[in-house]
Amino acid sequence: MTVLKVGLAGLGTVGLGTWNVCKNNAEEIVRKAGKKVKIIAVAEAEKNKFTCLEKNEAIYFSDAMKLTDVSEIDVIVELIGGDTFARAFVIEALKKGKHVVTANKALLAKYGNEIFKTAEENNVTVGFEAAVAGGIPILKVLREGLTANRIDWIAGIINGTTNYILSEMEARGITFEKALKEAQDFGFAEADPTLDIEGYDSAHKLALLASMAFGTKLNLDKVLVDGITNLDLREVIYAKKLGYRVKSLGIARRRNSNLELRVHSTLIPENCLMANVNGAMNAVQVKGNAVGNTLYYGQGAGAEPTASAVVADLVDIARGDRKKMITSIPALSFQSDQVKDLNVLEHLSIESGFYLRIRVLDQAGVLADITRCLSNENISVDAFFQKNHLKDDIYTDVVLLTHKCMGKDIFDAIESIKSIKSVIEDPIVLRVESLE
Amino acid sequence: MTVLKVGLAGLGTVGLGTWNVCKNNAEEIVRKAGKKVKIIAVAEAEKNKFTCLEKNEAIYFSDAMKLTDVSEIDVIVELIGGDTFARAFVIEALKKGKHVVTANKALLAKYGNEIFKTAEENNVTVGFEAAVAGGIPILKVLREGLTANRIDWIAGIINGTTNYILSEMEARGITFEKALKEAQDFGFAEADPTLDIEGYDSAHKLALLASMAFGTKLNLDKVLVDGITNLDLREVIYAKKLGYRVKSLGIARRRNSNLELRVHSTLIPENCLMANVNGAMNAVQVKGNAVGNTLYYGQGAGAEPTASAVVADLVDIARGDRKKMITSIPALSFQSDQVKDLNVLEHLSIESGFYLRIRVLDQAGVLADITRCLSNENISVDAFFQKNHLKDDIYTDVVLLTHKCMGKDIFDAIESIKSIKSVIEDPIVLRVESLE
Repeated sequence: MTVLKVGLAGLGTVGLGTWNVCKNNAEEIVRKAGKKVKIIAVAEAEKNKFTCLEKNEAIYFSDAMKLTDVSEIDVIVELIGGDTFARAFVIEALKKGKHVVTANKALLAKYGNEIFKTAEENNVTVGFEAAVAGGIPILKVLREGLTANRIDWIAGIINGTTNYILSEMEARGITFEKALKEAQDFGFAEADPTLDIEGYDSAHKLALLASMAFGTKLNLDKVLVDGITNLDLREVIYAKKLGYRVKSLGIARRRNSNLELRVHSTLIPENCLMANVNGAMNAVQVKGNAVGNTLYYGQGAGAEPTASAVVADLVDIARGDRKKMITSIPALSFQSDQVKDLNVLEHLSIESGFYLRIRVLDQAGVLADITRCLSNENISVDAFFQKNHLKDDIYTDVVLLTHKCMGKDIFDAIESIKSIKSVIEDPIVLRVESLE
Repeated sequence: MTVLKVGLAGLGTVGLGTWNVCKNNAEEIVRKAGKKVKIIAVAEAEKNKFTCLEKNEAIYFSDAMKLTDVSEIDVIVELIGGDTFARAFVIEALKKGKHVVTANKALLAKYGNEIFKTAEENNVTVGFEAAVAGGIPILKVLREGLTANRIDWIAGIINGTTNYILSEMEARGITFEKALKEAQDFGFAEADPTLDIEGYDSAHKLALLASMAFGTKLNLDKVLVDGITNLDLREVIYAKKLGYRVKSLGIARRRNSNLELRVHSTLIPENCLMANVNGAMNAVQVKGNAVGNTLYYGQGAGAEPTASAVVADLVDIARGDRKKMITSIPALSFQSDQVKDLNVLEHLSIESGFYLRIRVLDQAGVLADITRCLSNENISVDAFFQKNHLKDDIYTDVVLLTHKCMGKDIFDAIESIKSIKSVIEDPIVLRVESLE
């Protein structure tokens, strides 16, 4: 029996989860991998986290960089987070001929092009299944399971915090602020939730997914990002009335030789599977030209679900042939000389259905004025209703769903609508997707 | 550029799908595999199916066995079906050092132990992603994506025909017979639908899934199989009234050192994701001890979705190193010397909730008699109602859901219930699962 020797950097939530999964499932892992997967060294700044570990025979370092000097280590697991030290650390590990497994989506979305190149040059692999959608093996699905397909699009609930907040808003009719507060109290949201609720975390993951699906370079800075912080409860309630739910989706779609990359609140039909992904759960839908629609669902965060992905990457390495691995299965699914640079579309060039909420003075003729602005741009209306938000309100909400149209046409129509006298606020605009 | 040379046996639905996917996605496949995947020879008894193919440079054989003699062929794709010729053919191909890719679940469920052993002895692989749940890469998920987990259970809608029939019964309130007839008219069910509606097809797939999840030998003959042919529409309607849906599930569960293997109509809560898998779609839920609950959804049959899985296996082989492949990633997930023989439980030893429908003379005291029979076996009732199926009927249906109990206890209670004078028919019994 040979052993895969692992150096673990970081004993936070996922680091501890990884330690526990390796210990608790050691027997099961050997049966599958044909080798022991053993954490022989741990690096963690807070030493007490290390000394708390039970049945611990690992060597301790306070400085993670020291792990790269331990010659027996085959793989370094980077679970420190951040992208300054982590970048230098990962590059150094790869240059010293060590495989790297990481859950660090921000690092890879920003510096992936450099990191994967370094890995290839040094004939080692970078496993990062844990970086997207936690325990759901979505990267393996894209990299290996759906290789026969030309992928048309991917759409995913890839941030559990955001989905928890939206689910609570919808189920209990509470505001964003109240739902966020509760999510923080229950530990579903961090003290500083900006990365999650502003959509940046989803953008990191979407950049990785898109690159693997379409064979493009990582394009983080071109992802259109809109979080849920400005989402009014009314949108959630009105969407429900129309048979839709509001979900924050990461969407990557191929349009001829262009690419859409966007994260935003989206109305989706309430009877589709994705609309029924609630709480902190994640799901990714992939449409391939052969396989059709597929969906992958599970926990997107948490100690052991994320560790499940980290350790699966370790088993892949344990089963693989060190020399062959990198050349045979490319990290980003496509052979590195086959990666293309697709043009990423701007909002105005992206087609979808739209949800509009327009706050107006409740008087005759206003609906006619609004629909005229839409028809002038050849936008047709799919459904609408009018609703007084408060009793005896002199204002009313006009809510419309449009059929598919270009972002530019909606933008132009909105400009006209804003100039209608009885329209008293800037209209609210959300995209609608059928996911079919 | 090197080429992976493929011999394709069988130009039925999936064979033609495989041909088309290889042609249509050739460019995309090369970008991912780093090699061309080329069908250089085709075997098909009906020659006109071969001559219809466009842009066809392949060699033709009427006898598939001849493919095993073509020395350039690296991989043989077996899409002939059946298990007599196919068995001899696949064994011969493996013995001649050719990798095999097949969608033949019946073949593998019956003769997999022999076939995988032959492959290992000859240092080649057997790819069979297409054998279970069509285009959903569920086997790769089990074999590689979830290797860090001790799997607790798997439950799946793994037969599209059955699910189509059940979905139609539920959505439109039509009988099994009518739904089956329509499924046949629309091409969702075969002229002889026995394999599907009696549950045997699901049993084949379940045997493969269970072996990969738990590291056991293939145990096809021990799967408890109950089809949907005797399912009365009333069960579907009453289940709905109780907040459940009836789905035909394949379930494999670990119970200490025992195994449950069963295919049967099951009540599941209407708000779980699996309950919302409708029409001919498939889904497999996997519960691992680290990852928790995960679910995989997609088309379980059809030309191109199934071909998506066949071709993914070809890309795996193209990317792999011929010598290393078999030793590094075992076909059935566990290293072959680690496969155990778990005891498979009988119905009476399997615990679950139960749905009972008991047809009785509508008179005082009968409910008390029935509940006494249940409480005598320590079975507690979770919900119940009473309903006259037809107007002015002197008989009535007593419908009960029980909390979890042993099969034996329900069996004993039913025996007592049958002896109650006003019970006029043998009670209907279905299992209830929460899928949590």
